[in-house]
Amino acid sequence: MLYGPYDIRFVERPDPAIIEPTDAIIRMSATCVCGSDLWPYRGLEPITEPIPMGHEYVGVVEEVGSEVRTITPGQFVVGSFFASDNTCPICRAGYQSRCVRAFPIGAEGAQAPLLRVPLADGTLVATPDSPPKDLLPSLLAASDVLGTGWFAADAAEVGPGKIVAVVGDGAVGLLAVLASKQMGAERIIAMSRHEARQNLALEFGATDIVTERGDAGVAKIKELTDGLGVHSTIEAVGTQPSMMQAIRSTRPGGHVGYVGVPHGVQLPGEELFFAEVHLMGGPAPVRRFLPELIDLIWNGKINPGKVFDLELPLDQVAEGYRAMDERRAIKALLWP
Amino acid sequence: MLYGPYDIRFVERPDPAIIEPTDAIIRMSATCVCGSDLWPYRGLEPITEPIPMGHEYVGVVEEVGSEVRTITPGQFVVGSFFASDNTCPICRAGYQSRCVRAFPIGAEGAQAPLLRVPLADGTLVATPDSPPKDLLPSLLAASDVLGTGWFAADAAEVGPGKIVAVVGDGAVGLLAVLASKQMGAERIIAMSRHEARQNLALEFGATDIVTERGDAGVAKIKELTDGLGVHSTIEAVGTQPSMMQAIRSTRPGGHVGYVGVPHGVQLPGEELFFAEVHLMGGPAPVRRFLPELIDLIWNGKINPGKVFDLELPLDQVAEGYRAMDERRAIKALLWP
Repeated sequence: MLYGPYDIRFVERPDPAIIEPTDAIIRMSATCVCGSDLWPYRGLEPITEPIPMGHEYVGVVEEVGSEVRTITPGQFVVGSFFASDNTCPICRAGYQSRCVRAFPIGAEGAQAPLLRVPLADGTLVATPDSPPKDLLPSLLAASDVLGTGWFAADAAEVGPGKIVAVVGDGAVGLLAVLASKQMGAERIIAMSRHEARQNLALEFGATDIVTERGDAGVAKIKELTDGLGVHSTIEAVGTQPSMMQAIRSTRPGGHVGYVGVPHGVQLPGEELFFAEVHLMGGPAPVRRFLPELIDLIWNGKINPGKVFDLELPLDQVAEGYRAMDERRAIKALLWP
Repeated sequence: MLYGPYDIRFVERPDPAIIEPTDAIIRMSATCVCGSDLWPYRGLEPITEPIPMGHEYVGVVEEVGSEVRTITPGQFVVGSFFASDNTCPICRAGYQSRCVRAFPIGAEGAQAPLLRVPLADGTLVATPDSPPKDLLPSLLAASDVLGTGWFAADAAEVGPGKIVAVVGDGAVGLLAVLASKQMGAERIIAMSRHEARQNLALEFGATDIVTERGDAGVAKIKELTDGLGVHSTIEAVGTQPSMMQAIRSTRPGGHVGYVGVPHGVQLPGEELFFAEVHLMGGPAPVRRFLPELIDLIWNGKINPGKVFDLELPLDQVAEGYRAMDERRAIKALLWP
């Protein structure tokens, strides 16, 4: 629970129970701390009372409501961070995070041993079998950070022959590199000035590292692309400088996929008009990608779990936040 | 020439001449006043000296430079409002208005009897033959206002089964209705409170008229679309309220194509993020569409020239600006 700025506490709460007949209760196998959790942690989203935290989760179904049809107790499941019915027109178009019945899992708090998941049939995807423990970090990553990086690459229309730039070297940015590699990008430029993150980016498929930021970063990208800019840029930060760096790094007609939650961002209309780039972003509809991502992980094709460079027992969650806030860790996994 | 706010004058200027070997000189058959010409006319783009005006043109090639290969004297041609080489990577991707050698025709001034067109081979498209006079308004429309409405519909991914909203009932908005109809849209909602424009929108293929604006307009759109918003919205104004109306009228995952030149627009990052709509816009790469548009006009499939509801001799250009500024005319055609 977050009690105030920089004040995360592991406290006892009542066990969640089925409320709606479409709910499921899952026992957490692993959960983690998200880069977006740091915004309220740092006091940038003021709170008036203690709030549950966490929205990334994998676990075993304990109980389901009377109207749950496809998810059954005992299954190992991966879920997305917005519950969705997966049947409304918005879901069918692939935007489950904006389902007409969307419910943010963060409101329940996934940094906990048990979690109520609304709209279980539309939200959870079961794995083929009970996974070995060494797959848990990667399956957990699919729940948000991989799904979000994947969506960003999809939104930026990454594909064969494309030159891609990734702004942001957090876990989402790094997994956007992995996604771009899987999608067949010709060249992937990771923008990072942290050696450990650069190394992980290279391991995930980055072909170039650019350490410059802002205008100097844009100039470097132009230099690497015959002055044109890249075809696809992934923005995974959410600040004004990072959004402008992303837009200015992209060639006319190119695509910016942005997944960093914007804080205080204002896009100047006239510059955007003459930049003539496609923009698409928002909370990732992870549910769209989950079956494919689980399949890639299950078959050992990708190993996104490598972004977890810190593992802690759940009751040491506060240290996970501290380590990420101080950039001592890329991403902290929590074992219940 | 524009001498200052609301001060357009028909004056003598030296005839243009070939400067670069890739130039052509064309004798104007018809030109016109653009909605975007009204921004500087109204003093919203301050000028320090008299400037030539106009960027829409059709005419007969008088002379070509030594390196012009495909365009020849005597041809009747339609051109786009940005000269482009049509060979660079940006042009080949379909964004000729952002060609690495792009040159704005407005800087030469097409509201004139003669016009120098740079990069003639990449900019001009010849018609199959010398056109009958009654096709001139439609061919002239292709040069910008139809090409821009067409691009807006393309950028908004209009197509079969789509519900489309058009914000802005100027000539571009009206021709975006026509474009949407041609592209097979299922339903086309024109937002207009002017009867003459509503009627033309209906004639061009609009299925619904919404007279409300701003939040009330958005509410009406939602009411017409099961609360979801439309799939595709075309923004053809360029103000803060019209951009926000367009974004808010679009369902998550939908597309906004914006072609109104933004003036003072700032897009709030957080709202855009949670709107989760695609944005694409900018100066229309008319050259991409010209062959298809000329073909449709030549074969009588579309009649975009109907947007011209005022015709004047070129020396009465000032009245054309006045009539459009006062919304007495949708669009003024000028005969040299």
